[in-house]
Amino acid sequence: MRYGECRWPEIEQLDKDRVLVVVPIASLEQHGHHLPLLTDTFLATAVAERVHARLQDRVLLTPTLWLGASDHHLDFPGTISVSNTLYVEMIKQVTRSLVRAGFRRIFFLNGHGGNIAPGETAITEMANDYDTCDDVLIALGSYWTIAASAMKAERHGMTQPQLSHACEYETSLMLALHGQLVKLDLAHGHTHRHAAPPGVRLAGRFHRMTASGALDTPEFATPEKGESLLAAITEEVTHAMQQMLDWPRSHVLKPSAETARANS
Amino acid sequence: MRYGECRWPEIEQLDKDRVLVVVPIASLEQHGHHLPLLTDTFLATAVAERVHARLQDRVLLTPTLWLGASDHHLDFPGTISVSNTLYVEMIKQVTRSLVRAGFRRIFFLNGHGGNIAPGETAITEMANDYDTCDDVLIALGSYWTIAASAMKAERHGMTQPQLSHACEYETSLMLALHGQLVKLDLAHGHTHRHAAPPGVRLAGRFHRMTASGALDTPEFATPEKGESLLAAITEEVTHAMQQMLDWPRSHVLKPSAETARANS
Amino acid sequence: MRYGECRWPEIEQLDKDRVLVVVPIASLEQHGHHLPLLTDTFLATAVAERVHARLQDRVLLTPTLWLGASDHHLDFPGTISVSNTLYVEMIKQVTRSLVRAGFRRIFFLNGHGGNIAPGETAITEMANDYDTCDDVLIALGSYWTIAASAMKAERHGMTQPQLSHACEYETSLMLALHGQLVKLDLAHGHTHRHAAPPGVRLAGRFHRMTASGALDTPEFATPEKGESLLAAITEEVTHAMQQMLDWPRSHVLKPSAETARANS
Amino acid sequence: MRYGECRWPEIEQLDKDRVLVVVPIASLEQHGHHLPLLTDTFLATAVAERVHARLQDRVLLTPTLWLGASDHHLDFPGTISVSNTLYVEMIKQVTRSLVRAGFRRIFFLNGHGGNIAPGETAITEMANDYDTCDDVLIALGSYWTIAASAMKAERHGMTQPQLSHACEYETSLMLALHGQLVKLDLAHGHTHRHAAPPGVRLAGRFHRMTASGALDTPEFATPEKGESLLAAITEEVTHAMQQMLDWPRSHVLKPSAETARANS
Amino acid sequence: MRYGECRWPEIEQLDKDRVLVVVPIASLEQHGHHLPLLTDTFLATAVAERVHARLQDRVLLTPTLWLGASDHHLDFPGTISVSNTLYVEMIKQVTRSLVRAGFRRIFFLNGHGGNIAPGETAITEMANDYDTCDDVLIALGSYWTIAASAMKAERHGMTQPQLSHACEYETSLMLALHGQLVKLDLAHGHTHRHAAPPGVRLAGRFHRMTASGALDTPEFATPEKGESLLAAITEEVTHAMQQMLDWPRSHVLKPSAETARANS
Amino acid sequence: MRYGECRWPEIEQLDKDRVLVVVPIASLEQHGHHLPLLTDTFLATAVAERVHARLQDRVLLTPTLWLGASDHHLDFPGTISVSNTLYVEMIKQVTRSLVRAGFRRIFFLNGHGGNIAPGETAITEMANDYDTCDDVLIALGSYWTIAASAMKAERHGMTQPQLSHACEYETSLMLALHGQLVKLDLAHGHTHRHAAPPGVRLAGRFHRMTASGALDTPEFATPEKGESLLAAITEEVTHAMQQMLDWPRSHVLKPSAETARANS
Repeated sequence: MRYGECRWPEIEQLDKDRVLVVVPIASLEQHGHHLPLLTDTFLATAVAERVHARLQDRVLLTPTLWLGASDHHLDFPGTISVSNTLYVEMIKQVTRSLVRAGFRRIFFLNGHGGNIAPGETAITEMANDYDTCDDVLIALGSYWTIAASAMKAERHGMTQPQLSHACEYETSLMLALHGQLVKLDLAHGHTHRHAAPPGVRLAGRFHRMTASGALDTPEFATPEKGESLLAAITEEVTHAMQQMLDWPRSHVLKPSAETARANS
Repeated sequence: MRYGECRWPEIEQLDKDRVLVVVPIASLEQHGHHLPLLTDTFLATAVAERVHARLQDRVLLTPTLWLGASDHHLDFPGTISVSNTLYVEMIKQVTRSLVRAGFRRIFFLNGHGGNIAPGETAITEMANDYDTCDDVLIALGSYWTIAASAMKAERHGMTQPQLSHACEYETSLMLALHGQLVKLDLAHGHTHRHAAPPGVRLAGRFHRMTASGALDTPEFATPEKGESLLAAITEEVTHAMQQMLDWPRSHVLKPSAETARANS
Repeated sequence: MRYGECRWPEIEQLDKDRVLVVVPIASLEQHGHHLPLLTDTFLATAVAERVHARLQDRVLLTPTLWLGASDHHLDFPGTISVSNTLYVEMIKQVTRSLVRAGFRRIFFLNGHGGNIAPGETAITEMANDYDTCDDVLIALGSYWTIAASAMKAERHGMTQPQLSHACEYETSLMLALHGQLVKLDLAHGHTHRHAAPPGVRLAGRFHRMTASGALDTPEFATPEKGESLLAAITEEVTHAMQQMLDWPRSHVLKPSAETARANS
Repeated sequence: MRYGECRWPEIEQLDKDRVLVVVPIASLEQHGHHLPLLTDTFLATAVAERVHARLQDRVLLTPTLWLGASDHHLDFPGTISVSNTLYVEMIKQVTRSLVRAGFRRIFFLNGHGGNIAPGETAITEMANDYDTCDDVLIALGSYWTIAASAMKAERHGMTQPQLSHACEYETSLMLALHGQLVKLDLAHGHTHRHAAPPGVRLAGRFHRMTASGALDTPEFATPEKGESLLAAITEEVTHAMQQMLDWPRSHVLKPSAETARANS
Repeated sequence: MRYGECRWPEIEQLDKDRVLVVVPIASLEQHGHHLPLLTDTFLATAVAERVHARLQDRVLLTPTLWLGASDHHLDFPGTISVSNTLYVEMIKQVTRSLVRAGFRRIFFLNGHGGNIAPGETAITEMANDYDTCDDVLIALGSYWTIAASAMKAERHGMTQPQLSHACEYETSLMLALHGQLVKLDLAHGHTHRHAAPPGVRLAGRFHRMTASGALDTPEFATPEKGESLLAAITEEVTHAMQQMLDWPRSHVLKPSAETARANS
Repeated sequence: MRYGECRWPEIEQLDKDRVLVVVPIASLEQHGHHLPLLTDTFLATAVAERVHARLQDRVLLTPTLWLGASDHHLDFPGTISVSNTLYVEMIKQVTRSLVRAGFRRIFFLNGHGGNIAPGETAITEMANDYDTCDDVLIALGSYWTIAASAMKAERHGMTQPQLSHACEYETSLMLALHGQLVKLDLAHGHTHRHAAPPGVRLAGRFHRMTASGALDTPEFATPEKGESLLAAITEEVTHAMQQMLDWPRSHVLKPSAETARANS
């Protein structure tokens, strides 16, 4: 079901616990010399559409929220973005709207790395702050983390080890989906990255990592690699959505009875 | 030009003063028993697309921002919305992104009444707070205020005097554009409105104005009225966009020289 | 009744639905070479006082809130102002205080254009966010929008078509009320305005519209025009306040019973 | 000089370092059974007016900001207030406006206890955050702290040791200034206070300290005591304002030269 | 009891009204050429530890919150601080956590002057905004205000009249507690202060008051003075904490019955 | 070097690019029936102290910030926490303070899972928003992500596969460090967790995952396992800090020259 094509009485009558609302979230940001600004939005939407096609009667698919947290790309002209802290509030209020409508299973399907930290900050704050959200299943996952094992480089003939930005993965996916918008002859990573220690997150703007705006080896992208990736991603994300639908109700466990014993 | 299909070097090389960025803003909110939740987004997008088709080399059209300020509709399940104050920040940060990219003419083309007050609050605050915005032309207009004179009821055979919500106007436009999503047999205003005094704005949620979520006389909508309206709107909005493109640069006028005389 | 002269037990015993709280809101901002900074406050207060004199037992008049949203005038020294977003919060908290005291009918009588967008943003957010405000009548109107038809230029011999800023209208009103504070010989619009397309709101600071801070033709102001305007405004605003007092209670209309039919 | 009666060119031409802007800040809040809601505003304004009368050519007196931080009185109906944190922002933005206009000496003359903590929070934050405020003299004082020694109980025949709320001091001052608004026969402290340890600030709403809203012994107030207090307060506050006008410019002292020695 | 060494079932089983939670709050900020950045934290912690040692079964001592509101010291490198307005929120949320755990008596024991205004702003806002806090005893006191009379200069042979910053008092206390961290030979006030009028608070950064970062006469500090001060402070603060523990429950007093009489 | 024991002139004279500021961040939150509330703070501090001991002349160690983002634990009494969004602001302002002091390498060494999302949100926002932070190395890592490979269960004889909360890992570490504060006989996971799909983050409070507040198998903890873990963690975190110290300066790479070619 497409959320936006429903009328409100239809929403009202749904068995809210039986359906999963999927909100694709992405960005409008620079993607190197060779990919369009909406790349993340095209990709997240394509994945969401394919998952929706498979789980049509259980998934309510909203339009993709293209306005994302991409301030680390603002040095490249064209990026339209909100700050991390504003993005936190946006995701909180979208969540609130869905909880108020009675939904019990909500999934933010992410297509942009910059949305992860503020998005997770938002959904945990909703669960923590509002008792109305405490027993609602609210989740966020990026297609490349959900499908990490199925996207391994060797399974798709990729040169670079994993998805980064405007890279061989994203370029291949765009070639498969919107080839006419890709200028493959201009694809160049221009990357001068220094690896962060494992397990460490470095703050930083993209203009210090790449001259073109792209990372790694987009020049080796092909539409075939893109098709292969898309099939793998669709499979994994569909599977994750099914798990969300099967997730049992959770209950409050903390007993007071047990306390006496614990303190004796 | 479609903003999101551009690559960043294309954005960088544009003559920023020669082009107008058009950002359609709308909503995902209840539209009565008979219209889909995305109605405002469908309409604002349709108008924007038609204007874009006419001014293709001067207008940069972004994707429609469907997440709007519709909290007054939240009592009807399905609405996804942000509060007024959060919407102010969203519009401010979109503006900031465009100004940072160097654009000099920005237009928020609005398709949802609830966006007007926070949207105007936002753009004037940008101009007031940031010297970088002081000489940028930033504007906001709703298609029905821009085209007010061309949308007069008698010119299109309308029963109700002017556009309201999920009404004869919106329903006619939807019939012309997405007829398969309209349940005309369920269209009913169910309105129990009491007129506010002229020139007065009343706060209030929609569940106190209508039982169905629609206002006025949607049942009299026809696709022909919709086509007629759409043509008139397109004409007027195109004309307004041209005026935005022709608007001369404004300069700071306040002279200090004059002060002495003024105070003598 | 003057709100501020009441003691709290008097407030407690009022029939809250029978009275209208009128909160005049205005500004302290530049008004050209010829008018004092408090002009908007003088005018809003004068209108409010005259309305109060006529509806004394039904209207509770608070002091005028002179601190307004005038950041677009800050380039002219003297203006004391808060940003739009802060003004939203101020109006929200004033509203909250009055609702907590039990009042059911609240009117912000506005005398400054810059307050409109943030003021409307505020009162609708209160109604949307707080169930305690949902059934309270909260309204905002500017004296020149309420009295628009009665203030038509030809009815008062005005040279300019409508009220703007430090203009023939405001100057005439000030001449009628506080003539000793007006330097009519210094009145000059110094305006270099370019008309916005109809229905479009342009962001912008006043130092790009006028060199003196005034708009249009203040030099043609007379005290007689001011008296004539003041009488017309008083009449219309009084009438609007009476309508606020007569406004029937609104009820929640959205039926659940109807939903089944709507969805079948 | 009355700030609000000036025109902007007059403000522009002032020698900003030679004048002191005095902003009276007060409240609209419950003052027991016997005093009107605007009591603090009446008193702060009266003091400010008397000081202004004495220092007319050096003091620029703004209108009194009657909207204060009185949420601890909201349990008594009638109080119109903003929260502490909003009040901080209001005072910050008033300060900013005055600094932007070029003023170098700013004094918030306070008439309401609840404004002290947020007001001090605000002015120190302005000085800390904005280099434009670093060398501006920004100060806040309450008339009863400035005049503490001159207001000692024994000098004015007071029964209670010091000013509190709706008490013998405030009631006496009101009797001297606006006797017709005082219902002395209803004056009663109804106080059940327990003394806080010295040097400790307790949070708390007034409905836990008094049944009437008044503290201490208002029933012993007389107009003569009020006149005596007013004369003493006027003297002391005038003296403090003169000191503000004489305060020498402060300079940045932290030397880098000295550091080497300090670290050796 | 040390709060942080408890396990949650122990916290749950406490008689919350019988214990006082003491939260020492301090700073990490410049303290002149001769004292370490953590001076305030060392001192507040030392006082809190001594009080805890005396009231062990009634006081729950949390770790010291060393991150304070010291932006007025940021011009001296090394200071780690939050703004006043952020500090307000921190204290509010600590309070909220303790109230949610069921505590009824909470004391913020302060060791840094800059924390006072925002700390008081915070605790009064909690009491005002949340009914859950209305009947909880929430207090804030600085060790030098609580012990003001016992810290009088003549009782401890001090050269300067009262505690200021990195001064003879703080230096003496540090010599008594952490002498190895004090460079007494570098102690110099370098002060160029101008006295504010009595009862007036001036905003201002420390780099305009002192070249070294210290005030007054630290060079006269001795460990003996420090021991003497510490004993006096411990005595007074212990006494204040006992008063907090003995403070009777407060009740809502505002009667409605009385209102009728009040208004007749 | 201990940051807090330095005096400001020492901080001023440091070669800021040659040293790494390490800020341990942790929590005060429930840790099951058997571990104290300060567990995360004890552990993060212990790791930081050991790393400091090895890199003493290159690392500046601040005190541990024990106030963390633990609202998901508030249902268990005792937790003292700030919300995610407030934690974002705290980390931003600590970062700002350090950048203002001139530091070029800043590391938040984390010991609490709930701090990760808001902490990463904060440091990226600082880098994005402030040009002063753009070329500063700002990083955040949790000891268990940095040492992930060295903490593998089989290397330390652990029953559970990886660190969770109040679990075999944390309990073993506490037994090694503060055995007297551990009630091992009360250790029980009481866990009723359902695994989230891989790559998906679920929002949720701990009272829905565990009855005791602990997860997994704390009952199998031993001090020997703790010693073994601590040695491995110290090794890995020390190595990561060295990498931070060796990290080369990054430069802005985005060329404008290249753009022409890219767009041709």
